[in-house]
Amino acid sequence: MSTRPFIHDDFLLGTSAARRLYHEFAKPEPILDYHCHLAPRDIAEDRQFANLFEIWLAGDHYKWRAMRANGVPERFCTGDAAPQEKFKAWAAAVPHTLRNPLYHWTHLELARYFGIDELLDESSADRIWEQANEKLATPEFSVHGILKKFRVTTLCTTDDPADDLRHHVAIAKSGLETKVLPAFRPDAALTVNRPEVFKAWLGRLAEVSGTGIESLPALLEALRRRRDFFHEAGCRISDHGLARCYADPCSDAEAAAIFSAAFSGKPASSREHAKFASYLMLFLGRLYAERGWTMQLHLGALRNNNTRLFGKVGPDTGFDSIDDSPQTVALGAFLDRLDAENALPRTIVYNLNPADNYAFAAMVGNFQDGSIAGKMQLGSGWWFLDQKEAMEWQMNALSNNGLLSRFTGMTTDSRSFMSYPRHEYFRRVLCSLLGRDIESGEIPDDDALLAPLVRGICHENARQYFNLP
Amino acid sequence: MSTRPFIHDDFLLGTSAARRLYHEFAKPEPILDYHCHLAPRDIAEDRQFANLFEIWLAGDHYKWRAMRANGVPERFCTGDAAPQEKFKAWAAAVPHTLRNPLYHWTHLELARYFGIDELLDESSADRIWEQANEKLATPEFSVHGILKKFRVTTLCTTDDPADDLRHHVAIAKSGLETKVLPAFRPDAALTVNRPEVFKAWLGRLAEVSGTGIESLPALLEALRRRRDFFHEAGCRISDHGLARCYADPCSDAEAAAIFSAAFSGKPASSREHAKFASYLMLFLGRLYAERGWTMQLHLGALRNNNTRLFGKVGPDTGFDSIDDSPQTVALGAFLDRLDAENALPRTIVYNLNPADNYAFAAMVGNFQDGSIAGKMQLGSGWWFLDQKEAMEWQMNALSNNGLLSRFTGMTTDSRSFMSYPRHEYFRRVLCSLLGRDIESGEIPDDDALLAPLVRGICHENARQYFNLP
Amino acid sequence: MSTRPFIHDDFLLGTSAARRLYHEFAKPEPILDYHCHLAPRDIAEDRQFANLFEIWLAGDHYKWRAMRANGVPERFCTGDAAPQEKFKAWAAAVPHTLRNPLYHWTHLELARYFGIDELLDESSADRIWEQANEKLATPEFSVHGILKKFRVTTLCTTDDPADDLRHHVAIAKSGLETKVLPAFRPDAALTVNRPEVFKAWLGRLAEVSGTGIESLPALLEALRRRRDFFHEAGCRISDHGLARCYADPCSDAEAAAIFSAAFSGKPASSREHAKFASYLMLFLGRLYAERGWTMQLHLGALRNNNTRLFGKVGPDTGFDSIDDSPQTVALGAFLDRLDAENALPRTIVYNLNPADNYAFAAMVGNFQDGSIAGKMQLGSGWWFLDQKEAMEWQMNALSNNGLLSRFTGMTTDSRSFMSYPRHEYFRRVLCSLLGRDIESGEIPDDDALLAPLVRGICHENARQYFNLP
Repeated sequence: MSTRPFIHDDFLLGTSAARRLYHEFAKPEPILDYHCHLAPRDIAEDRQFANLFEIWLAGDHYKWRAMRANGVPERFCTGDAAPQEKFKAWAAAVPHTLRNPLYHWTHLELARYFGIDELLDESSADRIWEQANEKLATPEFSVHGILKKFRVTTLCTTDDPADDLRHHVAIAKSGLETKVLPAFRPDAALTVNRPEVFKAWLGRLAEVSGTGIESLPALLEALRRRRDFFHEAGCRISDHGLARCYADPCSDAEAAAIFSAAFSGKPASSREHAKFASYLMLFLGRLYAERGWTMQLHLGALRNNNTRLFGKVGPDTGFDSIDDSPQTVALGAFLDRLDAENALPRTIVYNLNPADNYAFAAMVGNFQDGSIAGKMQLGSGWWFLDQKEAMEWQMNALSNNGLLSRFTGMTTDSRSFMSYPRHEYFRRVLCSLLGRDIESGEIPDDDALLAPLVRGICHENARQYFNLP
Repeated sequence: MSTRPFIHDDFLLGTSAARRLYHEFAKPEPILDYHCHLAPRDIAEDRQFANLFEIWLAGDHYKWRAMRANGVPERFCTGDAAPQEKFKAWAAAVPHTLRNPLYHWTHLELARYFGIDELLDESSADRIWEQANEKLATPEFSVHGILKKFRVTTLCTTDDPADDLRHHVAIAKSGLETKVLPAFRPDAALTVNRPEVFKAWLGRLAEVSGTGIESLPALLEALRRRRDFFHEAGCRISDHGLARCYADPCSDAEAAAIFSAAFSGKPASSREHAKFASYLMLFLGRLYAERGWTMQLHLGALRNNNTRLFGKVGPDTGFDSIDDSPQTVALGAFLDRLDAENALPRTIVYNLNPADNYAFAAMVGNFQDGSIAGKMQLGSGWWFLDQKEAMEWQMNALSNNGLLSRFTGMTTDSRSFMSYPRHEYFRRVLCSLLGRDIESGEIPDDDALLAPLVRGICHENARQYFNLP
Repeated sequence: MSTRPFIHDDFLLGTSAARRLYHEFAKPEPILDYHCHLAPRDIAEDRQFANLFEIWLAGDHYKWRAMRANGVPERFCTGDAAPQEKFKAWAAAVPHTLRNPLYHWTHLELARYFGIDELLDESSADRIWEQANEKLATPEFSVHGILKKFRVTTLCTTDDPADDLRHHVAIAKSGLETKVLPAFRPDAALTVNRPEVFKAWLGRLAEVSGTGIESLPALLEALRRRRDFFHEAGCRISDHGLARCYADPCSDAEAAAIFSAAFSGKPASSREHAKFASYLMLFLGRLYAERGWTMQLHLGALRNNNTRLFGKVGPDTGFDSIDDSPQTVALGAFLDRLDAENALPRTIVYNLNPADNYAFAAMVGNFQDGSIAGKMQLGSGWWFLDQKEAMEWQMNALSNNGLLSRFTGMTTDSRSFMSYPRHEYFRRVLCSLLGRDIESGEIPDDDALLAPLVRGICHENARQYFNLP
């Protein structure tokens, strides 16, 4: 057994070229976290975490999935076990996650936050719990301290149009060096198939809009106003989580009728829902294009597949999955409709099934029109694909079917303030990939080419692309 | 040209770490062959094979496909050529199979059974024929001798519920050290779309059940009794070969009506067949859960694609293929229905299209509920995927989307007593994969972690998982 | 930075085994270009290209896609900028294509045609423009000079049945050493969904056939005569570009009715189009089988996805994409229908979605019947897949699910006389793959096995397979 710690300076960097690229060009770049699910309130309040459970395990469905697969009862995942008990259950599971990204993330996070080099398992759990908690109690480990430590220049949260953005206002006044901006995620606007959800959301939207919303035109007007409100708060990015794109023809009259039926409590049929969603997505696309925003489409998740456990523990707890239905025809039709009106915004399309990498890369490439370098982006490996082999596949698909050099790079998509080392992880994977190409002679060993490539993907491309204020 | 034989001690083991893992931890493990298509009668009778054709070529559709692709007439595949002629035709084809798994299997099998290191081709064919046949004539090469030689602790055949298991009874009495258990494969119970097949099978089932089966309730009762009969004979595993999962709603009355129509000779429509199959698969899932059995689902084969040659040479002769239709929604719906009733048994899902690895891995992960470690398994590379790159993909998909450490490992799915070296092959692939990870620093070089991982996947996980008697 | 040029003798050849195989067995083989889109007129007229733009950029939608993705306005792609301006825009984009196949192709082509080792970028653009143009002005760089330089023994263009083949006739008389043969591409015969296109084409076909075509039987008879006319001109290969296979039942009467409706200006519905196409593809398959031709099926392209830019710049300009719809059931049904009549010709099936490699490889394997070695071919990496990783995937899929040794190898599918180095590229990828297998011990290091394998795939298999005159 080696005496070098598992996470060392050259972790994942198997060639000397990779090591040079990483240490010289990748590592110095700051972080632009353009898509995450961090809680604005935690940032506004500069939250201090009570212990390693709070910052690391609470809300982490990746860990829960692994624990369940390892035979750990729900009590220690989402249940009522004490924080330290849950931590110990996780620690005991860690050795069983060998080759899962959790094994890398776990030790990278312990090393980068707390300087802990020891491998986590049952025997080291208590020691690590105490060491970490001790540090978490210090000011350097408040949310603001963490953002500073990881050199996060900008951070975009994910926000409902009905959100009043009060926390963002507070953060803006706080003097925090990291710019914290909202992002616009109007998924609730499509829920005509679930009238109770839809109406409750319309109520909240009406409240922040200061106007009643009882018709489709009123909804559209409210969304436009919220777009403007978000824009003033610095928002330049939207986000959508969709099983797949909607591209069904839908007239104004049809959309209005579907709205009214849902408003009166009648759920839209599957076909009506697709029509309404198509209509609204086109409307929203136009809104984004008008202001130079970027539209993010996260496609291909099958959610809440386990009815029994959904009933017990609710959504976003680790029962989601990857769809394998055809995606590209509808994706193309949706983008084409907007493009035909000159209303296609900058767009990042994320696929969840790695089998779709090529088809997605090729399809988004059809809408590169020379107006903006890298206007259409194949999004980085996401969720089940946020790990080494899938990151490599995404970068290879993009390289072979588009321009890697214009890639806006990593997004954490994270709910945890412990996830910033995933940028480091991504950068190591990137440099490892390039290093192998250099050593095999597949790309020239020329820093005039490589430095801008690496720096661009790590930070600079995103900085230029998003038009952030 | 190297003087070391092609199959040598370190075949496929490209790193020193791989060699250590294989020789220290993988190789010593015995074989638990939990899914195969070996003939119980051959075991009961302790068959001695007349020649290399009988044990190696008869019934091997992998070889026939390769021979046909090489321009070898059907006479030498399934036709009436003499055994030695067929063997020579195969030998002449072998050099043309370079990079096909058959090239590795062929030489590994010759080496491990007969100590033959020579490469098989036209020029070595006669020599190898004689050497092998000489050994096959000795007692060490009877079926029992082979099971002993390859240290097969347990072997599960694949049996129709209408089978009387007489051979299993005989084997149990024979004193054979290898435990030979039946597995329950009720595919015929779904054939309401082919009334003649369905009725003939019902007749056989009625006979072994000692009762008439002229209604759906009678069929269900007979299946339950056969489940119990198989259970007493040591069966703990079922198996299903399905193009894809069935998950259509079907009431008792609908199912009964479809049964009756088929019983009276009217084929179920495609929609009725799907309904009936959905109904019956739920019923069977409950039967398995009640007794702690494991349910295997082999999904995604398109069978009998060549009508002309199917007419000439029948099923299972090398005209089957890989489906590329969406699979996961139906798979999820089926598992969810059982899970919602707390009637989801331990389940192994095998996919045949490698493009589905991730979607399948993620979907089965939704039903890990902490009750049993590794309750839901992504099955090992099967059929077209039973080869090096596809095994690696399966293990990588499982590693990244679940727990490799809980994997129950290799299944031969074989019809031949010459296939046991495929376990060795799988173990070499596994250790090669881990060895590369160790040398690149992606997993710690620590035997406390690695020894249980390797031993578990080679044998111990399956031993614990299947609850065998 | 290395002093060795980027494109050097051992480019892509990472092992000594690869270098040996390439230099000894692959490099000496001539080129049999059995499928391309080169203009017969350019060959007949022995065209001399005015400059690097004409031979290299005009018509190259790969480059346009990359330029658009890099933010280059359409004026410099398909627009009215001057040739040298367009070249400079391309040169400036080249460094941004790092890891895209264009980066390799670009420098390989500059090296092999003009002996230019310098990397192309903004700063080298003028110099390279002049050096290349100077050479292009010499007789060695006429079309005939190029075909000689690259040792092209045979070249099959892609021709409409309505073509009079006058250029082929002229070439045959010219004494050009390269045999230039037509290939039969009757895609227009399926366009009953676009009556204006269909009728115009029928008019042209009638003209070359010297007979009116106002009914389905007349069309079939004309196609048969054109088949014979092409056959006399040396054609032995057909080609079809289809989104996917058609396999809908369609009677003579139905087909005739669909023909008549289209002939009278009424577009076929989607269902009618599929029926008619199914009918005609079976008819054509029979025509090919009668004469021992090879049928090529290029499946899975989604074309003209960008309505706005299609309106501006027309088809084949870089707005095509990869379908992800299921393909294999229809493919199998189509092949089976022909096979059942003993009318399945030699067939090469190309897939455009790499996720389909295995499903396609397995499906074509069902129609290997021992009559011809390698009768059914999985076509080489095509279009988006004509690059290193996708070539490797195709060869691995073929190796694992068929016989690599019977592979007819590379097709450029190119529209440019600058594409011949892609054969070299393919051969380097092939030898690199085999070299790794040799060094890892996965295939024997034995030239008696390897030399015929390499030579076969580079040239000899195609020479034997196509029955060319």
